Amino acid sequence: MMAAKPETIQASYVVRRGRREDCDELLRLIWELADHEGTLQKPTITKEILLEDAFGERPNLHFFVVELKGLEDNGDIRGKMCVGFAAMNGFVTDIFLGRHSKLCGLYIDEGHRGNGLGRALMKAVCKTCLDLGVASLDFDVRMNNQRARHFYSSLGVTNNTETKGWEYWQFRDTNMKKFSSEPECLNGVNTQL
Amino acid sequence: MMAAKPETIQASYVVRRGRREDCDELLRLIWELADHEGTLQKPTITKEILLEDAFGERPNLHFFVVELKGLEDNGDIRGKMCVGFAAMNGFVTDIFLGRHSKLCGLYIDEGHRGNGLGRALMKAVCKTCLDLGVASLDFDVRMNNQRARHFYSSLGVTNNTETKGWEYWQFRDTNMKKFSSEPECLNGVNTQL
Repeated sequence: MMAAKPETIQASYVVRRGRREDCDELLRLIWELADHEGTLQKPTITKEILLEDAFGERPNLHFFVVELKGLEDNGDIRGKMCVGFAAMNGFVTDIFLGRHSKLCGLYIDEGHRGNGLGRALMKAVCKTCLDLGVASLDFDVRMNNQRARHFYSSLGVTNNTETKGWEYWQFRDTNMKKFSSEPECLNGVNTQL
Repeated sequence: MMAAKPETIQASYVVRRGRREDCDELLRLIWELADHEGTLQKPTITKEILLEDAFGERPNLHFFVVELKGLEDNGDIRGKMCVGFAAMNGFVTDIFLGRHSKLCGLYIDEGHRGNGLGRALMKAVCKTCLDLGVASLDFDVRMNNQRARHFYSSLGVTNNTETKGWEYWQFRDTNMKKFSSEPECLNGVNTQL
């Protein structure tokens, strides 16, 4: 009789709200996401900002993690590990619609894609948005990220650049400094801040 | 000798921070902006939300108004009136950059354009952003709004859709409700919110 084939590691996933102690894992995943997107500028976010914005006095960052629970051959639960996350801003005032939320990141580790984890995270995000009573969840998607475009379309998200011609503009702080320091030459306009 | 020609009304502008008592004027200008943009859906924002988000317990909306000060022929100051505004969200966590702000509206009444009021408002916005220590001011511009595109470009704002291919996606609440209520059929994924 042949020896029993070694058991493969059984893994299951838990999607849950992020906790203070997840901030290191979240930071690691944010860096992985930046690498994945080939972002030229490396993330400058700090653990302090994550802790303050998600758990401080005025929290306005919600995040969710996918925790991998694996059973070793001997039945022990392998140390937990996060293999994905979603982060959203609680609410932002939209002067037309009232309030909306912003999805500021969604990422699944490459080895765990195709298991429905992105959908599960987006459900958690949507439920939170609906609980907050916001009118929409807004975010940016890179045009050449076909996988993401297909994924979000399949959930019912609309691409406002394609359908309504809205473009995404950004005023970086260095440019703001330059513009703000230009000498004023407006006649009859008095600024009193 | 001819009668003296009636004095024309002398007007000057003051750009200042919005106050509680400006919320009715702001609401009027928001409706004008929606008309101007030909937005199909009418604004659903309420005065209550404006008051709460700009002046409530956890304010996260800053706005600025352009007040018109006109002198009547007899030298009296004509009742004040707002002819433009800019509104921005205080800060939103960006998981890469740390924090950013969002410009959620900028509008100058048609009869007062070309006087540098947009620039003056944007300077007020930039100064506030820099005071808040944010990394960028993000916003959406409609592709066919050539005047706005030219204006923002001239200030040093970059169009990330054009240069980096970022598109603006939006998940509306009706679609979120539909997606959230789909029956779950993910194996091995357990959601614990």
